[in-house]
Amino acid sequence: MTGLNTYANLVNARMEDLLPPANDAPSILHEAMRYSALAPGKRLRPALCLESCRVAGGNPSLALDAACAIEFVHVFSLIHDDLPALDNDALRRGQPTCHAKFGENIAIMAGDALFALAFSISPECEVMHELAHASMALVQGETMDILSEGTEPNPQTLTFIHQRKTVALIAASCAIGVRLGGGSDQLVAALRTYGNHVGLAFQIADDVLNETATAEQLGKSAGSDRERNKMTYPAYFGVDESRRLAAEEVNQAVAALDGLNETHQLVEWAHFAISRER
Amino acid sequence: MTGLNTYANLVNARMEDLLPPANDAPSILHEAMRYSALAPGKRLRPALCLESCRVAGGNPSLALDAACAIEFVHVFSLIHDDLPALDNDALRRGQPTCHAKFGENIAIMAGDALFALAFSISPECEVMHELAHASMALVQGETMDILSEGTEPNPQTLTFIHQRKTVALIAASCAIGVRLGGGSDQLVAALRTYGNHVGLAFQIADDVLNETATAEQLGKSAGSDRERNKMTYPAYFGVDESRRLAAEEVNQAVAALDGLNETHQLVEWAHFAISRER
Repeated sequence: MTGLNTYANLVNARMEDLLPPANDAPSILHEAMRYSALAPGKRLRPALCLESCRVAGGNPSLALDAACAIEFVHVFSLIHDDLPALDNDALRRGQPTCHAKFGENIAIMAGDALFALAFSISPECEVMHELAHASMALVQGETMDILSEGTEPNPQTLTFIHQRKTVALIAASCAIGVRLGGGSDQLVAALRTYGNHVGLAFQIADDVLNETATAEQLGKSAGSDRERNKMTYPAYFGVDESRRLAAEEVNQAVAALDGLNETHQLVEWAHFAISRER
Repeated sequence: MTGLNTYANLVNARMEDLLPPANDAPSILHEAMRYSALAPGKRLRPALCLESCRVAGGNPSLALDAACAIEFVHVFSLIHDDLPALDNDALRRGQPTCHAKFGENIAIMAGDALFALAFSISPECEVMHELAHASMALVQGETMDILSEGTEPNPQTLTFIHQRKTVALIAASCAIGVRLGGGSDQLVAALRTYGNHVGLAFQIADDVLNETATAEQLGKSAGSDRERNKMTYPAYFGVDESRRLAAEEVNQAVAALDGLNETHQLVEWAHFAISRER
């Protein structure tokens, strides 16, 4: 994924600048923010934002701060989801989770601070509202995810969780990128549709990987969904049917790009969403 | 405090509308948000925002959504500060804290959701940035507050904590109100200075009340600062000197209004910050 790596490097360098220096007081808070935000991630959401900006005809640098804000919101949600009171995960992006490393109190605050940082740097009002709405969806999705543990899987709840927990922010990343690139409302709608399908494909693939891969491959806990009786695609549809449904989403994502120019990278990433090994 | 009550009623009614309906899924999340946000509070920050808007020549209704956003940020911070991993408080605004009522997981999410909601409704980019910066300060202040528990009180750390934990959002409330009311940069600066002094006076008074009042009077735990060895004004200066310092802040707050019109309400509230019994 060359394009993904190029964007990831840009985003990592900019995040490094935007994050409070580790030496500023209270330094443990800023260390925790930097530890989680700069941990090796795929940076899929920022990359989608930057590439959507480019597809809209804008220089990706126009969307760089927004892309970082999106990643900060994503990392905030990971830190809080991993907390003992929620998913109680010990491993994330190949390293101990924020609370495992810094304690629960600092992890709660580091998540909050990353959330605040995201809105300090978002460049435009429309972008901030889009991001705020996606953040609200994220929290609603995670809450439903927790509440549905151990309950009988059903497609309505499954869709509710995945749409909010994952799809909303991925689709928003595309929409924000297009807007900052100066794209039309029509292009915003097209790439939002693309993002909706890629986001769902990505989450189904994540569910499948949790079931089939090892923690070493994933850099986060494996088999934890089944252990916690999470409502996932494999839990309801089984692994094979889940894979088929994810592939269908990828097809629909690609179809949403029909007639648009310069979309080869977006097409590639749609396929990557389900072919990746972590 | 007639003016305070009038504004509080406006703010409560608008918050009621802005909060997600309790029946929408996940309803426990929305119930928890409503429970904490609509609990009886003084609404000092929103009132300062609305009154600052009026002093700037604007109709307070121009700042109503921003005032609610400010209160949502405040409530988000209260919910997270009260968590077992942080201050571990059981009582807030005369009722069980959010986590005591709904569990720790829902309380973490309800705080996050109120934070997201604040940024969904903030009407202007400049307002959102002001609010985001104040939120970051809030988190830094609370973190330092936690870290300094049991350490030797010193004026530098004390100032660091109070400036960030309380003063920043109160001063921002005034600045945001002036901006939305169409006031000049000069008026923004004057009311921000007023807010800085009122905010510090308010927090010193809070520290003193924690030492001298009962939980019944306060609607939140009393004596908890001393119990947890918090770094407070009374812990460093003693109660009498703290009261004197708070009164001095009130004088400076009032002095910042010198030469401005229509400031009787702001003057009254500056005095209220230290004369209140809860």
